Formats: sequence, C-alpha cells, structure tokens
Amino acid sequence: MLDVDKLSLNIPDTTKPRVVIIGGGFGGINVAQRLKCKDFQVVMLDRQNYHGFWPLLYQVATAGLEPDSIAEPLRKMFGSDKFEDFHFRLVKVNGVNPIAKMVHTVVGDLAYDYLIIATGTKTNYFGNDEVKKNSFPLKQVPHALNLRSHLFQCFEQASMTADPELQQSLLNFVIVGGGPTGVETAGALAEMRKHILPTDYPGVDFNRMNIYLVEGMDRVLPPMSPEASEKTLKYLQEMGVVVKLNALVEGYDGYVATIKGGEEIQTQTLVWAAGVQGALIDGLPAEAVERGRILVNRYNQVLGYDDIFAIGDIAFMKTDKWPKGHPGVAQPAIQQGKLLSKNLRRLIKGEKMEEFEYVDKGSLAIIGRNRAVADLPGNIHLGGFFAWMTWLFVHVMALVGFRNKLVVLSNWVYRFFTYENGTRLIIRPFVRKGDTVRQQFINKYNTE
Amino acid sequence: MLDVDKLSLNIPDTTKPRVVIIGGGFGGINVAQRLKCKDFQVVMLDRQNYHGFWPLLYQVATAGLEPDSIAEPLRKMFGSDKFEDFHFRLVKVNGVNPIAKMVHTVVGDLAYDYLIIATGTKTNYFGNDEVKKNSFPLKQVPHALNLRSHLFQCFEQASMTADPELQQSLLNFVIVGGGPTGVETAGALAEMRKHILPTDYPGVDFNRMNIYLVEGMDRVLPPMSPEASEKTLKYLQEMGVVVKLNALVEGYDGYVATIKGGEEIQTQTLVWAAGVQGALIDGLPAEAVERGRILVNRYNQVLGYDDIFAIGDIAFMKTDKWPKGHPGVAQPAIQQGKLLSKNLRRLIKGEKMEEFEYVDKGSLAIIGRNRAVADLPGNIHLGGFFAWMTWLFVHVMALVGFRNKLVVLSNWVYRFFTYENGTRLIIRPFVRKGDTVRQQFINKYNTE
Repeated sequence: MLDVDKLSLNIPDTTKPRVVIIGGGFGGINVAQRLKCKDFQVVMLDRQNYHGFWPLLYQVATAGLEPDSIAEPLRKMFGSDKFEDFHFRLVKVNGVNPIAKMVHTVVGDLAYDYLIIATGTKTNYFGNDEVKKNSFPLKQVPHALNLRSHLFQCFEQASMTADPELQQSLLNFVIVGGGPTGVETAGALAEMRKHILPTDYPGVDFNRMNIYLVEGMDRVLPPMSPEASEKTLKYLQEMGVVVKLNALVEGYDGYVATIKGGEEIQTQTLVWAAGVQGALIDGLPAEAVERGRILVNRYNQVLGYDDIFAIGDIAFMKTDKWPKGHPGVAQPAIQQGKLLSKNLRRLIKGEKMEEFEYVDKGSLAIIGRNRAVADLPGNIHLGGFFAWMTWLFVHVMALVGFRNKLVVLSNWVYRFFTYENGTRLIIRPFVRKGDTVRQQFINKYNTE
Repeated sequence: MLDVDKLSLNIPDTTKPRVVIIGGGFGGINVAQRLKCKDFQVVMLDRQNYHGFWPLLYQVATAGLEPDSIAEPLRKMFGSDKFEDFHFRLVKVNGVNPIAKMVHTVVGDLAYDYLIIATGTKTNYFGNDEVKKNSFPLKQVPHALNLRSHLFQCFEQASMTADPELQQSLLNFVIVGGGPTGVETAGALAEMRKHILPTDYPGVDFNRMNIYLVEGMDRVLPPMSPEASEKTLKYLQEMGVVVKLNALVEGYDGYVATIKGGEEIQTQTLVWAAGVQGALIDGLPAEAVERGRILVNRYNQVLGYDDIFAIGDIAFMKTDKWPKGHPGVAQPAIQQGKLLSKNLRRLIKGEKMEEFEYVDKGSLAIIGRNRAVADLPGNIHLGGFFAWMTWLFVHVMALVGFRNKLVVLSNWVYRFFTYENGTRLIIRPFVRKGDTVRQQFINKYNTE
C-alpha cells in the first residue's frame, strides 16, 4: 500500500540564495521571469498549476471562452528549456516562520533566503455563511465553469416547467457587487438574453428574464471615475440590467435574496462579486497586517523583515498618493514584481534598492458590444466604441501565450460577426450544496 | 419553497406527427437536421446539451483540445432561427411503452407517433465492479477532463517524492483496450513524454515513465485490416509504448493492475477503453435485443414495431455483408440518420421506404506525429505521413461548427510547429473514489 506521507517538496539543495515565491499570479510570474539568472534558486508554490488572466474569467462563466484561453500552465511558462534552477510545486502553503526562515506546506517545510508573498486575494463574504454556502463566487476557473453549467441548467429547466413562480425564479439572476466583475457579468448576460437565448430556447419568454446588479455604494465601478460610472450605468440600463445602488444583500438561502430594507428577490442564482480580501498566510505578526493586507515599505519589504516581501493585491503600501494602497488590479502587481526582481539582484550585490512608484496606466471595463469605459492617464475618459476597441486590444495583448492571443482573438472575431457564444456546454455537475430545485432534481432523478 | 415536481417536459401540443428522438449523437442529429420541414414536430431528448465529436475526445484528455473544440451545443445547432417546431429537452429517459406509444422520462411522459432510439453506447466493464470503481473511462467530456486533471496531478506528485516505488506507480500508465481510443491515448501520452514533460518537470526522470497498452486479442485495432494493425504496432513500439497482446486485465484496486496469468503492474492510472455496450432503454421486449443491441430491419424499424426505429451504434442490423452488424463508428449512424429522415417522409405519404445499404468509407487511426493508419475502400492501406494528413483533414472537416474547425485547426497548426499542448490545466478535483494516494492527499490536506 502506497502512502501519501512519502510525498515531500523534494527541492534540490543549493549553495545559491533560495527565493521562494508563494503564488503564480501577476506579481509572482513577473518577479520569477526576471530572476532568470544564475544568481538564485527560485521555488514557486501555488495551489493551481496555471497562471490566469482573471479580468477575462467572467467570459468563461458566460460561455465566451474556454479556460485554456485565459490560463497558461505555469510549468509551460517556466520550462527548463527557458529557466534554470526553477522549481514549481503544486502545493498548499500553511504558513511561514520568519525566525527560522521556513515556509510550511502540506507536504513539509522549506528553508528560504528570500520569501515573496504574492498570494493575491480571495472572495470576501463579510462573514455571511449563508451567502457563502448558497452563492456562486467568481474568482477561479472551477467557479467560472460551475457558474456556466449552472446558468444553462437554469435555462434548460425554465423550458421544462409550466409553473410561473418556479420559472421566474430560474430566470432571475442576481449579481452582487458593481465592480468590474459584476458589471461585466451582468453585461454579458444581457447580451446573451438579446442575441442567443431566444433562438436557443424558443419555448421560454425571455422578456421575463431579469438581471439585477446590486451595489452597496452610490455608483457602479466605484474605483473608476464618476464619468465612467455614469456612462456604465447608462449602458447597463440601455441593455435592460436592473441596477440597484445603495443596496446591500443581507441574506440568500438559495431561493430568496434579501436586500437590506426588506426587498426580496426570488432567484436560483446569486453571483457574489461583492468584495475580496487578502489571501493571508499564517505566521506573520499581527502588526504587519492591516485591513487584511500585509504592510510593506517602498521596497515591498514586509514590516519588520528585510528578507520577506509582499507584492500585488496582498501588499499594503501606504503612500501619499495612494493612502489606501494601490488599486486591486494587475498593474501594481506587475510593476512591483518587475522592480522586486531588480532589487533582489541589487540586494545580493550589496547595492541600494530602488523605491517603488506606481505608474497608473488607467483602467477599463466592458459592458457589452461596442460599449466600454476607459479612464486613461491625464484625466481622459472614454466611452462607447473606441473604449471597447481599446478594451479588446489591451486584453488580448495582456494574455500570456501567443496561442492564447490567437484563440481568443479568433473567438472574438467570430462572435463579433455571428453574435454567437460557442461554449455553452453543461459539463459539470451542480455543486452548490443547498437544497435548491436543481439539487432536488439531481437527488431525485440521479441524472449525473 | 420551490418544488422540483413542478418540472415537466412542457412540449406544446400538435396536430402533426410527433417524432421523438432519444440521443443527440451522429444518428440523432442527422435525422433531425433533415426533418426540417413542416410535416413533423421533432422532440430531441438527451442527458447532455451538446453533440460531441467523440473520435477526438482523447485529445481533451491529453491536453490537446478544450471541450468546446469537439462539442457543439445542440440548441445552437437546432436554433429556432433555423428549425421550426423543434424541441430539445435536457432529460434522462427512463423507458418506453410501445403499446401506449409513450416515452417515460424523469420529469414525465411524452406520447410519440414515431420514436427514434439513437442512444449509442456506454462503457462496458464486463461486470467487473472493482475496475469500474477505480479506472478512468473515456466516453464523455467530464471523463476526459477528469483524466486530464488526473494525469497532470500524477506528474506533479511524481515531482514531489523521493520514494522510488511511489514515483514509479505515479509514472506507470496502463491503458486497457487496443481499439482507436486506447491506441490514440497511448500515442498522445508517448508524444507528451517526448516533447513536453521533460522540460515541464525537470526534477523527474521520464525514462522511468511507462505506457502500457493492454489488448485482449492478438493485434491492436482489431476492427481494422491486419496491415493497419501491424503498422500501428510498429509505430507504437517505435514511440516506446509497451504493447501487451492476448492480455486481459482481471482486476485493479487503484494500486495494482492484475493481468490474467499473474503479471502485476503498480499504477495510479488505469484507463478503461476495453469495450462498449449498447445504451439500452427499458420497455422493449427481450426478443428485440441481441448482444446488447436492438434488432432492426433494413428500414431501421425495431423488431416487432413499425413506429419505433433504432439507428447508429445501438441498432443491430444483420445483413449478409455485415452479419455482426455495422462497425461502431460515426458513418453507419450518419447514413442511417439521413436515410431515416427520408423514409419518415415517405411513410407519412404512404410511399414505400428505401432499404439501408452501408457505404464503407474506410477507417482511420492516429498514433502520433506523422504516424497514422488508414484502410480505404478498395482494399487500400495507407500509413505514415499521408495517412496522418488524411486523418487531420477528415477529422477537421467532420467537426460540426465553422468555429470548431477554426479553433481545432489553429490549435493543431500551433502544436505542429511548437510541439506544445496548451491545455494542461488541472481544473477538476480528483473524483475517483478509491483510497489512492491522491485521494489520501486530498483527504489529509484538503487542498481543494
């Protein structure tokens, strides 16, 4: 009988300084790509074996793209034909011991010379376990595939009932959170309702389908400019999305979403895109953590340590210009990763490190066909077709592999001319644990 | 509280003859596509919402293609912009009552005027429950995605152990069944071992990776010509696949595969491609079923009925030329589907139906890059590069949508020049229930 305890990290010994990077997101890959030199041994630990371009994850959920279009295997990016003494391990990190300079993982410990925490964020349910149990998060590839299968199961079942109450509940979609994920998901659903669903499901009256976007603050896309928020709201309303501002979802039992103040929406689908929190790891002192993120100085060194760094979303670098830290998008992670690789090389040579200064390249969101908003540096705000083209270009260019760019581009060109999403395949069993109609269906009829 | 019992088939009443088609495979879609006329109401029932091109399923399992490349949503194929009075329902069929002319489904019954059984085949474990529990089938999209995630988890864990016995077990791959699925899976794994794995997993010695192909008969690809079998065996051996002929796998407990005669292979991965059986439905009399398939006459009418038809793999049409029935490939299903649509129109007009005669267009299998075999009509047998090009051309052309053709072709061109499979993403939890090392890993460390 084989034993799981025979697993270990199995990293070769080295005389070079060992850099351990936790996380293969934008921060992690950008620092690792530029440590491609003989001065370090680099170990990357992640629970996923791929780097993902998460701004496009909602497209996987709404049947626009398959996962391979937005995710690139980390081992492919860091193959031994390109990188020397680089070691990836698919493993969960339990914690860190800064005194012993050790990382603890589920299969053993690893000593580091330099530790880089690039763990990013995870979904924040704000302590609401009922919502956590019954809603659909949208942070990882399996989440997106689950949601995709669920959406089309809702439409299938809406075509299989003559009961108006049940059908309405299957055709109500509540998206909580008016950030980019929520806005883009709502927009994609509205496009689908207009161009695809009526011919796919001729027995269903899609005038009855409702898309609710619920945001706690007084505008959508709160991190963007007021101009962008206003345009986005107008676009969403033109597309028939019901936007509820200053509205907080307090509960969801799998049947009824309750909004603070008492309003109730019967729905089988609540997408939770209301917030994220830092994916912290155990072992750092409490004073190094503020608002769920790790306090770092201008060199991304974690408060109190000169050999532990945090970059990207998990890092909280207070500056005069960004007193609440940098925005939770890819650019700060990319820029910090690039600088940190230079600073690590300076560090081992005894040179002075360079301070980080964020270069804001603007932000973008897409709402629908020909509808997007862009805040560009220099207080420039774009909308409509031009912003949409910019969004397409920036997002295709940001994809990692040549192949991904090609596949995504050909998908988008195809969809532009045909209005067709191609990937509406129900390939996953329904995984939400609540006793919903679909779960009853599976339990009763065992259709899996 | 909503109730699952409020679901029903919800098919509109009609005065036209109702044709109920069970199954959206090659048989089902070919008959439905050609009933595009105002003479019938057509209802298609399937447990999957897509039509799949299963000859390429092994490419999903071996990280060559994503599911959307080989599967097309049935509702997209039969959208109301193209088809009138066509109704798809995602539902499991429990049985049929030929006397009452009713189909029984999990959400209610449906009366038919004509019933077409096009359910195809399912994996045949030959009654071996231990193998069923512990092996990987390869018949459906979720099977392929499970196997893909599993294969790469094996490689990841092989890189995380210093224990030679455990590592060997993770690097031994046993494929049971020397038909096209088994041969093509073995070939794809051998290509991966040569071109991808050594740079992806520099810590693992892939000279230790073994690919076993176990076939009970005395040659691989038994349905093809002896010439094709011989060439295929040579190709497989050149690529380092260990082919065991006249060998039957008797048991597999998740750790050790036992071959009749006593040989044992330690392995974490046993792919079961050893056989299929008809996916029968309840309610037909025993005399209409022979060797797990439904006996039909030359009009595909089920023995004893003139309003029930069976087409494709589930149909058993004995003819002088094909005394054991037609081969279990796409062509008989396609040809029978096409003819049946014509015959149904003849039937309602009181005209005489046409007898089915199978036109053998030959068969093909791919073993690796530049290595394929083809048996063409006229006793022509091809091998090597030319057969390989034929294989590529035929399989791309056979894909349903224009978009699928484009995506698959661009993937293949990319892979031809780069030797890269792009989709090696571990996106599914491990689902096999046996207490294997990976299951222990998940249980112990809860990495999901």
